[in-house]
Amino acid sequence: MNKTRLPLSQVYRLLEPGPVVLVSTAGPRRPDVMAMSWHTMMEFEPPLVGCVISGRNHTFDLLVASGECVLNVPTVELARQVVGCGNVSGRRVDKFERFGLTAAPASKVGAPLVAECYANLECRIADRRLADDYNFFVLEVVQAWIDRSRKHPRIIHHQGKGVFAVDGRILKLPSRKK
Amino acid sequence: MNKTRLPLSQVYRLLEPGPVVLVSTAGPRRPDVMAMSWHTMMEFEPPLVGCVISGRNHTFDLLVASGECVLNVPTVELARQVVGCGNVSGRRVDKFERFGLTAAPASKVGAPLVAECYANLECRIADRRLADDYNFFVLEVVQAWIDRSRKHPRIIHHQGKGVFAVDGRILKLPSRKK
Repeated sequence: MNKTRLPLSQVYRLLEPGPVVLVSTAGPRRPDVMAMSWHTMMEFEPPLVGCVISGRNHTFDLLVASGECVLNVPTVELARQVVGCGNVSGRRVDKFERFGLTAAPASKVGAPLVAECYANLECRIADRRLADDYNFFVLEVVQAWIDRSRKHPRIIHHQGKGVFAVDGRILKLPSRKK
Repeated sequence: MNKTRLPLSQVYRLLEPGPVVLVSTAGPRRPDVMAMSWHTMMEFEPPLVGCVISGRNHTFDLLVASGECVLNVPTVELARQVVGCGNVSGRRVDKFERFGLTAAPASKVGAPLVAECYANLECRIADRRLADDYNFFVLEVVQAWIDRSRKHPRIIHHQGKGVFAVDGRILKLPSRKK
């Protein structure tokens, strides 16, 4: 896997733009992976990420049981696999096999990295106070990986019902803020 | 204002792709507005939105005091105003005046709509359990407006430090999911 460590202070620059991510988890029989767009940064460093994972999803059970997951950031080249992962359940299907994805070992969590993704964020649950009411988890990113050979990664933004906006031109404006 | 009501069931299609939004609030002296990218959908209907607003921001005080705000979705044409709103404090500056933005009355909350934005979501705080620890608020969207004359609105996604990805091509894939 052609990836290097990304400083944790830079994780917000990956998630703040609103990519669809693939959430991978370890399981008793096999790992699973699902597509997710309901996430937000909550703190720069250590990076905290809030996310909603429906209780109907197999990932919910695996995340609650293990306390760990990986948030993988796919680029547009993986769009079909992303939609595929969103349309079948890991209870019935080995999604890594079905969609030709590679489960690579993480360094700090038991959940696997999706090797084909541009970046991978190893996470542990930091707060589950809102899990009962909203299926909302606060995750702490404990290790981050990025493929620095990709100079112009184009992430995809879900507009609902399988419609995605792909990153277009990049606009750089003078700003005093992170 | 050339806008029509958007069914609340469709609000997720605006926020799920990860736009920078402008958060407008009412205040004792004047309304304020700030830029925000740390938000996520939490429920389809009634729409719930989770967001982080730093306690250092004037908006934090106005939101806590009033319990209400509007999330306004700007398109790329407003990028300079968005960055401007992020770089000065409403404690010192009337940002609507400074950036040539129009505060239009909302229908269900005291906070104003930013008329120039493509869509406006009137919100009330629904849950502040995580406000002390993370500056995280759960908002309920109680009314939503959209400019349907805009056929190809291009939203902007903040990558940090004033760098934005503008919506590019649209990809439509068959999906069985919302």
